[in-house]
Amino acid sequence: MATIVFCSVNKTARTTARRCLTSHLKGLASAGESHLPLSYTHSSSLTLLPGTRWLSRGSSVRFMSHGTAGRAGRTRRGALALGGAAAVTAAAAVAGFLANANHFQRAEMATKVLRDPEEKEPEGDILERCRGFMSPPVTDIALLQQTKGEMRTRMEMLIMETQAEFCKALQEVDGGTFKVDQWKRKEGGGGISCVMQDGKVFEKAGVNVSVVSGYLTEEAAKQMRSRGKVLKGKDGKLPFWAMGVSSVIHPKNPHIPTVHFNYRYFEIEEEDGSKQWWFGGGTDLTPVYINKEDAFHFHNTLKVACDKHHSKYYPDFKKWCDRYFYIRHRGETRGIGGIFFDDLDSPTQEEAFSFVKSCARTVVPCYLPIVYKHLNESFTDEEKAWQQVRRGRYVEFNLVYDRGVKFGLATPGSRIESILMSLPLTARWEYMHEPAKGTREAKMLDVLRNPKEWV
Amino acid sequence: MATIVFCSVNKTARTTARRCLTSHLKGLASAGESHLPLSYTHSSSLTLLPGTRWLSRGSSVRFMSHGTAGRAGRTRRGALALGGAAAVTAAAAVAGFLANANHFQRAEMATKVLRDPEEKEPEGDILERCRGFMSPPVTDIALLQQTKGEMRTRMEMLIMETQAEFCKALQEVDGGTFKVDQWKRKEGGGGISCVMQDGKVFEKAGVNVSVVSGYLTEEAAKQMRSRGKVLKGKDGKLPFWAMGVSSVIHPKNPHIPTVHFNYRYFEIEEEDGSKQWWFGGGTDLTPVYINKEDAFHFHNTLKVACDKHHSKYYPDFKKWCDRYFYIRHRGETRGIGGIFFDDLDSPTQEEAFSFVKSCARTVVPCYLPIVYKHLNESFTDEEKAWQQVRRGRYVEFNLVYDRGVKFGLATPGSRIESILMSLPLTARWEYMHEPAKGTREAKMLDVLRNPKEWV
Repeated sequence: MATIVFCSVNKTARTTARRCLTSHLKGLASAGESHLPLSYTHSSSLTLLPGTRWLSRGSSVRFMSHGTAGRAGRTRRGALALGGAAAVTAAAAVAGFLANANHFQRAEMATKVLRDPEEKEPEGDILERCRGFMSPPVTDIALLQQTKGEMRTRMEMLIMETQAEFCKALQEVDGGTFKVDQWKRKEGGGGISCVMQDGKVFEKAGVNVSVVSGYLTEEAAKQMRSRGKVLKGKDGKLPFWAMGVSSVIHPKNPHIPTVHFNYRYFEIEEEDGSKQWWFGGGTDLTPVYINKEDAFHFHNTLKVACDKHHSKYYPDFKKWCDRYFYIRHRGETRGIGGIFFDDLDSPTQEEAFSFVKSCARTVVPCYLPIVYKHLNESFTDEEKAWQQVRRGRYVEFNLVYDRGVKFGLATPGSRIESILMSLPLTARWEYMHEPAKGTREAKMLDVLRNPKEWV
Repeated sequence: MATIVFCSVNKTARTTARRCLTSHLKGLASAGESHLPLSYTHSSSLTLLPGTRWLSRGSSVRFMSHGTAGRAGRTRRGALALGGAAAVTAAAAVAGFLANANHFQRAEMATKVLRDPEEKEPEGDILERCRGFMSPPVTDIALLQQTKGEMRTRMEMLIMETQAEFCKALQEVDGGTFKVDQWKRKEGGGGISCVMQDGKVFEKAGVNVSVVSGYLTEEAAKQMRSRGKVLKGKDGKLPFWAMGVSSVIHPKNPHIPTVHFNYRYFEIEEEDGSKQWWFGGGTDLTPVYINKEDAFHFHNTLKVACDKHHSKYYPDFKKWCDRYFYIRHRGETRGIGGIFFDDLDSPTQEEAFSFVKSCARTVVPCYLPIVYKHLNESFTDEEKAWQQVRRGRYVEFNLVYDRGVKFGLATPGSRIESILMSLPLTARWEYMHEPAKGTREAKMLDVLRNPKEWV
């Protein structure tokens, strides 16, 4: 079996960064290491492909049945076929960190690249890009190829890429492997859930893609959107498509924060064939202890991505985030926020998508540098206990307020395990827990009770 | 300070049972042990009362201001002034266990006493009964004395007694002490929360009383009741009183089940002065592993208490319980049930109260024998982990479905810590957890997916 290390055939900045990272973490010397993350390897013919792990999950027939398999070995673009600049961004952030750049320098590096006009490069060949995914996409690849220019297809490709990009970065740092479950929804569509549990670094890491479709009543269609619009369906029924990538990462070390992100797209077709569409999403951080440098890096990385598209996006979506992730009965936010938006349908579909793409590609550079920074910090039992109390609050938010969870639990046919994978592996509820004044725990609470500006 | 051990002055079956229990657990030799649970001791004058722990909580002025303090030392009825027969029931169940009666015998003992017509004895002197409580009652004692015959007063006395009875039984077995918090509600009324956390036997034990009053809109009044009734208020506003005792006990040992109970009373006054009232409540068990003997004992004790009042109560309220404690998104019940009822306003107020009283007095004999039975059983890490997964499900039910919790979290001015004290100290969420076929864990799940008849 011809296994070739990806970075040995593609001399881009991304490759270099990845090679540095891989070497640093695993001490790998050269090509041919069978324990390399599979996604960084590929072979010269599809039937021998060890790099596309999902081929071994019984899905290869579907993948190969479109008669395009022969192209796989041709381009050798590698497994992670994100648009080049974004991938560079992500990898550069990590590589920068490993090269001992300080956080501000690294954040700068990460975010400067985002401004690169190269980002608007063509999105590339569907099949080639699919090879980097954690699993075959939900929609049939042949259909994706036929509808390559449509927003539904472009968004499905983006969320699959975001999932793969993030999962691979997490596997890299943890050394563990995501369990990948592909699931179907009886009513139409399905999803791909990637979960890594009880790893070396991550207590629980879930990255979920779902692509569902079906019919909505006019009333349900109205309710799906925060600004309810009256939509006219054929015989009162409206075909809809909803897709998104969402993730929650709970690390073991209380000095590494929990991160959550979600990027989604909705489309509803009216009686006359016209389409209503909108995007939503956000990325937010939930630290156990306040670290101003981390908070600045996280928010600034998001701000730079937002500012490229509209100067109001970061300030508006930052506030929205603080409002949304609010545990009302506790009078505190879930974490230190980030950005959150919904119902985004302007200025054009192209520009809205471009913004969402920027956000999705900011996930790795927002979070991974923070993970690496605190990776080897020791912690006390008291710090771990405080983390567990904060985890309890996370559970409270997710089960009591999170719209997605509530909608999912109430929807027949939902895949409950994918919805609840956002819950931590462990959590704690102490009666009347209130940190002593002046402690770092009290300082954290103060920030949660009075959201701050970080950039 | 003259400290006299309670059981040395009252030669009833209850006293004997308690003395046996105390001796057994603590090896106490005689009167005068200062580390006896305070509630089982009292002194000859109120100012010296170490037995009424709440006097030291700054409430003594209120208690003593009614000019009745002098009566305290007179009757020497002891701290736990439950109606005699019920207290005998509770104590006999525990004593029976300690005397190595088998469970069926013990359950028989416990439940036979319930049939004793003596239960209809007069409810006794208010002040005297208050001395056994965990804290002064929510309502001013002078007012309780003035309104002694009213249902609101009788119910407040019953829930306070139930709290004290249960807390003391739990303290006895655990060796720990409940933290008692009295709290006020700005809009009217308040409560008493008793919590014991991280004890020897109990991971978290919460027993809460609340007595609240205020004004409802007609719409809210309608919604408070499952069978909504149209009520006419003065200028659309209806004075209401709501009170109840509720408790959740999470033991450490996975062989000891979690128990929950709640007994409550509502009263609404209409424009013409007529009163709408109803009772609700229930007791249910959540084991980690199925133990048929425990399940029989628990359900049979409830059944006997129900059967005294109506032959339909147990079968109807058992089904209601299975329906109510259902985690819909998991397709499983929270535990093995018990009884649950709401809107009980027949056949008469007296008989409904008598039924609720029987239920409340069945809590200790339902649960304590099971605790003692498994107290010293060893357990494995795997058993503990399964308990933690079940605890996660408990959290899911309580935060997603429990009407009381949802109502509480959504109500401004609620005391959140009292509402959420039902959550376990620790819980766990494992992705795609499914026990292997044929294991005891799988058998437990099977019962939760297909509720059974236990008696």
